[in-house]
Amino acid sequence: MTPAADHTELLALRDALRDFAEARDWGQFHTPKNLAMALIGEAAEVVEHFQWRTAEESARLPDPDCAEVALELADVLLYLVRLADVLDIDLADAARRKLAINEARYPAEKAHGRADKYTRL
Amino acid sequence: MTPAADHTELLALRDALRDFAEARDWGQFHTPKNLAMALIGEAAEVVEHFQWRTAEESARLPDPDCAEVALELADVLLYLVRLADVLDIDLADAARRKLAINEARYPAEKAHGRADKYTRL
Amino acid sequence: MTPAADHTELLALRDALRDFAEARDWGQFHTPKNLAMALIGEAAEVVEHFQWRTAEESARLPDPDCAEVALELADVLLYLVRLADVLDIDLADAARRKLAINEARYPAEKAHGRADKYTRL
Amino acid sequence: MTPAADHTELLALRDALRDFAEARDWGQFHTPKNLAMALIGEAAEVVEHFQWRTAEESARLPDPDCAEVALELADVLLYLVRLADVLDIDLADAARRKLAINEARYPAEKAHGRADKYTRL
Repeated sequence: MTPAADHTELLALRDALRDFAEARDWGQFHTPKNLAMALIGEAAEVVEHFQWRTAEESARLPDPDCAEVALELADVLLYLVRLADVLDIDLADAARRKLAINEARYPAEKAHGRADKYTRL
Repeated sequence: MTPAADHTELLALRDALRDFAEARDWGQFHTPKNLAMALIGEAAEVVEHFQWRTAEESARLPDPDCAEVALELADVLLYLVRLADVLDIDLADAARRKLAINEARYPAEKAHGRADKYTRL
Repeated sequence: MTPAADHTELLALRDALRDFAEARDWGQFHTPKNLAMALIGEAAEVVEHFQWRTAEESARLPDPDCAEVALELADVLLYLVRLADVLDIDLADAARRKLAINEARYPAEKAHGRADKYTRL
Repeated sequence: MTPAADHTELLALRDALRDFAEARDWGQFHTPKNLAMALIGEAAEVVEHFQWRTAEESARLPDPDCAEVALELADVLLYLVRLADVLDIDLADAARRKLAINEARYPAEKAHGRADKYTRL
């Protein structure tokens, strides 16, 4: 990522969450263990929106439900950014490196349309 | 987010994931249900790194473990961005709106240092 | 459940897990926080077996996969029994009470075949 | 488990859940994918009770909270039993087999008090 003058999204969120926690003296609760638990809790709230829906219904959510899911996805992102910060991990850099790893692990010409490769995580 | 000419991080990841899936014809597996399941699976891999560690050990991870956790956090971000895209949800916008909701729900002067408010999600 | 002389399954598992942990001096790791994290980690391993499969494929797992899923379900049960024990919770009794609550919350004549009630947990 | 005339706990729960689902025509929603998602959702509700608590607070839950956790553990057990049934898996047998595998994998004399072995799941 080119070093730009403008603040990137993930860094802006990181800073906003630092301010948020500091203003409330909530840093004491933000241990990596706790944040990891909060992260998976929010991921579960995303899962709940789809658990009784069919694959088709999941792809055509009514607007109110989609709006709720958007906020649950937001919760996951917020805890993810906060956890990365507390662990001093560069999240954007890690994401780019993982993409590169995936590109190498699943070469397009070999992995095309195949479920078996894709399921063997 | 100001409409800027340069591609933002989250949009860049979104586009990279679109290309990745298309090149492998994996869109068929990327239903919201499946992606939600993959998302929580990756969150669980983050949790696993901390489940037997104490709060103190969790905050002082050895470098190799921290490097592994970085890639697990990356996996969560990648599936999160992909799921938002498939649902046509603007993730960055949702995150900013949720931050604002949290600011209003937990006013700094009332929520300061208190665990009870913070636990009542 | 009638008070029987023979040891019930859940109590037998509870005792076996107590012996297992004690013999290895692992009680120190079995705090409720840690066990809750381990529990959800195992649930995630169950989810992983189905995340890329269609609903139909999920219902017709090949034998080797089914055997693996059986052991993942076992892992969930073992951590569940251990966590209940550490919290001094009677798991079998709680299950019966929750069934009764569900019976009252979703009367058969009203809830028949309806997804909306069932999704509003 | 000795073949006994009296119905075991897990089998009794299995049958009660079969009746419950049938009376409401909810079998259509009980695909393995959906049940796996419901299972992890309930595990997340257990995790939520502990995420902001310290290890010590987690071990000394106030009675009302403990009562709530008991019902969450019950939810996990109910979905676990239901999922095993839908997959035609003998849950009690799988649990006993997994215990035996764990006994062999972590010999007491070698695994005693050591966190490293225990974390390498």
